Amino acid sequence: MSENRQLLETFENQFPDRDYKIEIVAPEFTSVCPKTGQPDYGTITILYTPDKVCIELKSLKMYLQSFRNQGIYYEHVTNTMLDDLATVSKPRWMKIEAAFNARGGITETVTAQYTAAM
Amino acid sequence: MSENRQLLETFENQFPDRDYKIEIVAPEFTSVCPKTGQPDYGTITILYTPDKVCIELKSLKMYLQSFRNQGIYYEHVTNTMLDDLATVSKPRWMKIEAAFNARGGITETVTAQYTAAM
Amino acid sequence: MSENRQLLETFENQFPDRDYKIEIVAPEFTSVCPKTGQPDYGTITILYTPDKVCIELKSLKMYLQSFRNQGIYYEHVTNTMLDDLATVSKPRWMKIEAAFNARGGITETVTAQYTAAM
Amino acid sequence: MSENRQLLETFENQFPDRDYKIEIVAPEFTSVCPKTGQPDYGTITILYTPDKVCIELKSLKMYLQSFRNQGIYYEHVTNTMLDDLATVSKPRWMKIEAAFNARGGITETVTAQYTAAM
Amino acid sequence: MSENRQLLETFENQFPDRDYKIEIVAPEFTSVCPKTGQPDYGTITILYTPDKVCIELKSLKMYLQSFRNQGIYYEHVTNTMLDDLATVSKPRWMKIEAAFNARGGITETVTAQYTAAM
Amino acid sequence: MSENRQLLETFENQFPDRDYKIEIVAPEFTSVCPKTGQPDYGTITILYTPDKVCIELKSLKMYLQSFRNQGIYYEHVTNTMLDDLATVSKPRWMKIEAAFNARGGITETVTAQYTAAM
Amino acid sequence: MSENRQLLETFENQFPDRDYKIEIVAPEFTSVCPKTGQPDYGTITILYTPDKVCIELKSLKMYLQSFRNQGIYYEHVTNTMLDDLATVSKPRWMKIEAAFNARGGITETVTAQYTAAM
Amino acid sequence: MSENRQLLETFENQFPDRDYKIEIVAPEFTSVCPKTGQPDYGTITILYTPDKVCIELKSLKMYLQSFRNQGIYYEHVTNTMLDDLATVSKPRWMKIEAAFNARGGITETVTAQYTAAM
Amino acid sequence: MSENRQLLETFENQFPDRDYKIEIVAPEFTSVCPKTGQPDYGTITILYTPDKVCIELKSLKMYLQSFRNQGIYYEHVTNTMLDDLATVSKPRWMKIEAAFNARGGITETVTAQYTAAM
Amino acid sequence: MSENRQLLETFENQFPDRDYKIEIVAPEFTSVCPKTGQPDYGTITILYTPDKVCIELKSLKMYLQSFRNQGIYYEHVTNTMLDDLATVSKPRWMKIEAAFNARGGITETVTAQYTAAM
Repeated sequence: MSENRQLLETFENQFPDRDYKIEIVAPEFTSVCPKTGQPDYGTITILYTPDKVCIELKSLKMYLQSFRNQGIYYEHVTNTMLDDLATVSKPRWMKIEAAFNARGGITETVTAQYTAAM
Repeated sequence: MSENRQLLETFENQFPDRDYKIEIVAPEFTSVCPKTGQPDYGTITILYTPDKVCIELKSLKMYLQSFRNQGIYYEHVTNTMLDDLATVSKPRWMKIEAAFNARGGITETVTAQYTAAM
Repeated sequence: MSENRQLLETFENQFPDRDYKIEIVAPEFTSVCPKTGQPDYGTITILYTPDKVCIELKSLKMYLQSFRNQGIYYEHVTNTMLDDLATVSKPRWMKIEAAFNARGGITETVTAQYTAAM
Repeated sequence: MSENRQLLETFENQFPDRDYKIEIVAPEFTSVCPKTGQPDYGTITILYTPDKVCIELKSLKMYLQSFRNQGIYYEHVTNTMLDDLATVSKPRWMKIEAAFNARGGITETVTAQYTAAM
Repeated sequence: MSENRQLLETFENQFPDRDYKIEIVAPEFTSVCPKTGQPDYGTITILYTPDKVCIELKSLKMYLQSFRNQGIYYEHVTNTMLDDLATVSKPRWMKIEAAFNARGGITETVTAQYTAAM
Repeated sequence: MSENRQLLETFENQFPDRDYKIEIVAPEFTSVCPKTGQPDYGTITILYTPDKVCIELKSLKMYLQSFRNQGIYYEHVTNTMLDDLATVSKPRWMKIEAAFNARGGITETVTAQYTAAM
Repeated sequence: MSENRQLLETFENQFPDRDYKIEIVAPEFTSVCPKTGQPDYGTITILYTPDKVCIELKSLKMYLQSFRNQGIYYEHVTNTMLDDLATVSKPRWMKIEAAFNARGGITETVTAQYTAAM
Repeated sequence: MSENRQLLETFENQFPDRDYKIEIVAPEFTSVCPKTGQPDYGTITILYTPDKVCIELKSLKMYLQSFRNQGIYYEHVTNTMLDDLATVSKPRWMKIEAAFNARGGITETVTAQYTAAM
Repeated sequence: MSENRQLLETFENQFPDRDYKIEIVAPEFTSVCPKTGQPDYGTITILYTPDKVCIELKSLKMYLQSFRNQGIYYEHVTNTMLDDLATVSKPRWMKIEAAFNARGGITETVTAQYTAAM
Repeated sequence: MSENRQLLETFENQFPDRDYKIEIVAPEFTSVCPKTGQPDYGTITILYTPDKVCIELKSLKMYLQSFRNQGIYYEHVTNTMLDDLATVSKPRWMKIEAAFNARGGITETVTAQYTAAM
């Protein structure tokens, strides 16, 4: 389990009877490449349908910043975020897209999705 | 029930036999953050298929302006608008998308949908 | 029935055995608001699959210009055009999208569709 | 049958076991309006899944240039190209989109599709 | 089999229980036309769902560079890459899109797809 | 003298001691071609430094609308507007740019300038 | 003198020996039309070369928000801001550009400039 | 002297006392490469200040079309047009920019200017 | 003096007889706000004419990264970079533009310039 | 002297009495980094006023391709091209801008200029 997870806070969803969609775009994400120690930069997009709670935006900002000096791979950071955010907010459905800036002229985007068990 | 709702006016749909679509985009929406008292800005997009009545645009403008100095959360304002507009215009189908400007480098868009009971 | 309809001309579809699609975009549409007398401006997009005839473009231009000084609502003008064009050209399928310029900071687009009875 | 058709050449598809897609965009198409004698300009987009052969690009360029001084209607040129290209290359599936530049402020795009009989 | 294939390296997929998507865009691809000896330029987009391993990006860069002075057709290079990458990484699903720059005013994009046998 | 000129109204410039610049863009201008009777469309841009008065925007809108059904050439309408606006508002400096939509695939923009005599 | 002026704060310019340029863009400005009571929206751009002090950004945000419910004309608000900001920060040079959103299809931008007396 | 020149017509400049600017953009120019016989495509931009006459747009269109099947180099066609247009319209100042589409991945733009002798 | 300065390396300018211009754009700059401890993000643009040496790009990357966890104001970081880069590379002329991302809906860009004493 | 220079060919300038401008854009330039052996990519823009001869475009393409597998620095390649092209074509004035793709998130553009001695 990621230690950063405890930074995340939620608040009560006031419209639990309706399936609606929340999209959050955070274009200022940065972490560190575990191999080279060089910083990576990217845009994190979170799409979800809340169930009992919504994700509080300021705590999400702190959570995303907690990766700032952490060495972690593109595929790993995307799936870890999905695990953390889904565990904390228990959404009906969630998708995370992490689009990283070009390195060596090559760009990578990782997209992972979660659906609540019925 | 929102007090602003009574600002909304409608007019008769002259083509009730046809299922057609109306999209309204209002990029000058502003309300106030209930926590910090700071203004929020966003673009409201309303998509609907009218049944007996259409939403009158000038009254919609006044309705949207009624949030100008009101403290309200992103998720709340979107769902409240959907409740108000669906109650007043009784559409066959309606979707509201509220795209709020970046705060702390993070953007949020909330989308909620309504379908008339058959 | 709209008087403008008689301006529309058609020509024979030389490929009636094939279901193909024609898209016409007319970005210089203008009519007059029936309430205020002020001009409205918009872009009309017509999509259709011809059956026995195609719509002649020059006559369509004259038809669209016939609304220039006519007072008519957004919803009305879109559905009237669909009725006129479908009656004259008897297409297998037709869709009209009328996207009007912002008034009071608010934009409206009306989309209506027609399918020939089997 | 169009005389231009004999300009088209093909080469063997080296991956016939795989259904794959080829998109060709030719933005420098020009022909002549049969009514006014004035030149028309447009962009031709060809999408197809090859079967036994692929279309050779240089011969396609010569084929498209053969319309340069020919008088032909939008709808006619699009469907004629589809007939010519499908006859010569016998694709599994083919779609041609011809988007013509504005005349009198009005733009037209014609799209026609072909599917091989099973 | 392409000799370049042995340049490709992979690493273990740490989230094999989840079907997720990786998109890689490499806009600096160049090879040589086998007919004219002139260089071709294009953008390679690789989309896949990893199974046991992910493709290592630095080795992919070296693999793509190995075509730099090789004479090969558009259709051939696209399908060869798909064969190489699918063989080495055994993905659940993979799609490659190769969009080549205009030659003689004409642009071609080839798209091929692979699905693992069940 | 143009009859439309009397539609223009002005209001007092409250900062006459400062040379400042006002730019007005009106993209919904339409007049009629005096030769063909066909409507022309364009964007009028007015740049000026006020002296004693500023141009009132609502009256400017009515002034621009007064050309709606008037037959007038591009070069003529631009220079006439400059004469009317400069006579009514007596600016220190004024420039009018009229950019007309394409006709026969050709676009024309006319720009004329006025400087107050010292 | 504008009452809002006292909201503005400054901090010491640590590089007074160098003539350098600061550009601030505030796209979320809103005030109220003094005639109609309807809200106006615009983007304020401030360009200046500091002398002894720089403008503190948070206080500038509060200053700009102080116009939120104030009725004021475009030309007036621009020149008033220039007076307030120049008085408080005594820059070597300052320019303010206020670009207001379209009303009735017409956009206005006001630009005013200040230079310190030598 | 170019034979096409006699296609050009002019009309009287009604505002000869004012130095004003006319910009004409013709994006549908096509001629033929004198070496290869292949068609070239480009955008012709003409900027001038009229003296006694203005260039009539329809005759200009015919003049530009007269190059359609003529073999001529980029540098030659640009300077020839400048000679023809300046001779016929005797402007106070004229500039022609001819921007040709890419051939072999390389684009060329030629710009030539004329000033009337004082 | 900034401690980061010693990270910068240079190499010999092989064309010292020619005044030429080098522009470097680094869009992945990040530092920390000294007041709030929150990260700031921006794009650094460096323009200079080299004299005896050029700035080595890899060392520049390391220099820019040295601000990653440092608390420093916008105006300060821009002028400090100019001092460091001008001291190390002794250019004939240098300009630095630092464009920071929006905070509270407001964007700031600082531009400072250096000219070698004659 | 660069060995590639002999690839360049010229042809006679037919309008030597006129100072006119030729701009050539070549977006498919590639060379190799002399340190890492990795390919670099960029766009070369050449602006010049011809004197007695113009640069022949096909020979220029071959000249630019001669750098394809050559190890050379950004600053060096730009100045070498300027030397080669100015020596061969003896223009009245020439400017070369070489804009290289990002490496390590940092982009560099080098611009050098030549003026003929009077």
